[in-house]
Amino acid sequence: MTRLGEKAVTDRAELDRLLDSTILAHVGLADGNGGAVVIPTAFARDGDSILLHGSTGAGWMRRAADGSPACVTVTELDGIVVARSSFESSFRYRSAVLFGTFTRLPAAELSRALDLLTERFIPGRVAELRRPSAREVAATMVLSMPISEWSLKVSAGWPDDEDEDIAGDAWAGVVEYEPRQFGTPQPAPDLRPGIAVPRSVRALAGP
Amino acid sequence: MTRLGEKAVTDRAELDRLLDSTILAHVGLADGNGGAVVIPTAFARDGDSILLHGSTGAGWMRRAADGSPACVTVTELDGIVVARSSFESSFRYRSAVLFGTFTRLPAAELSRALDLLTERFIPGRVAELRRPSAREVAATMVLSMPISEWSLKVSAGWPDDEDEDIAGDAWAGVVEYEPRQFGTPQPAPDLRPGIAVPRSVRALAGP
Repeated sequence: MTRLGEKAVTDRAELDRLLDSTILAHVGLADGNGGAVVIPTAFARDGDSILLHGSTGAGWMRRAADGSPACVTVTELDGIVVARSSFESSFRYRSAVLFGTFTRLPAAELSRALDLLTERFIPGRVAELRRPSAREVAATMVLSMPISEWSLKVSAGWPDDEDEDIAGDAWAGVVEYEPRQFGTPQPAPDLRPGIAVPRSVRALAGP
Repeated sequence: MTRLGEKAVTDRAELDRLLDSTILAHVGLADGNGGAVVIPTAFARDGDSILLHGSTGAGWMRRAADGSPACVTVTELDGIVVARSSFESSFRYRSAVLFGTFTRLPAAELSRALDLLTERFIPGRVAELRRPSAREVAATMVLSMPISEWSLKVSAGWPDDEDEDIAGDAWAGVVEYEPRQFGTPQPAPDLRPGIAVPRSVRALAGP
């Protein structure tokens, strides 16, 4: 995207607001052949760390846990900056790029981390569910990366057109995206009759 | 994200549907230090190619244009799969990972490519704008990567719970995101009075 109007932000609170507003990250690792591979994954911030989870069989997570340098990018596209020329048109967005290495959480820390991830994705869900079994915990890998080396770029401005374009007849402005909304919960085909949509799922749709 | 229920899809038409449904890609390049860097960028599909554009001053684009191997990942998070356990809960998503190398479009191809990008981001906008100036075109770099080596993963299923969980009282189902919507166009602070919101911008909000 055109980088005009982009500002680097060093406020950690603003970084946290972005990290806490989306659950999708893109993780970059070297591919071992001079290139990179970019993997999408759900994540959660845990204080000063980024947590990812997945199956112990996930090759890329095992590779990330080996201490390979990783890049975690979290982006929210907030809207379109409609300028009076193609050249000045751009986007409103926030984008965090974090560098570091992941470590695999030890068994003793898995239970708390898995609860934190579940609560991040579906707030209130943990209290509605049975506890994970020992087999399930053993089959799950949680990776943690400290939030220490990062940059945050924010583009939140207005069109910055040339004077002669401003004097012309073209419209200029911004069209922002609405926040993402969830639709109506759809029961699973094998849901037994009489089980109501729980509070956590109803809350996803907002108050 | 948990990869249960994920399927690899080899249908090129389904890849194109994903590439044509979002304008945000994450591009991975080697960082020259054994790691990777992941850059978010707007993109457009042009037939059998991925197009990116930016300033001729953008360091990462110049590096990508050097023939460095690149990875382009495009992800849509479609919803949450709410299972009867944390372990089986996951996401609905579509994710394309493309590998290749970018080449910089020659000057003769820039005009058509820039129009294509503008039309992809704001359909109908090109006809409402003056043509890009020679100076603007000269300050813009467009990179193209062929769509040839790619994989597409789609998770579109339902919770796959254990029999004993299905027999219990926990709800299960799917909560999908609604398609993203644009809000009301906001005029630029320097917009001259009497200039109406154009057709292209009104159309962003949908019919």
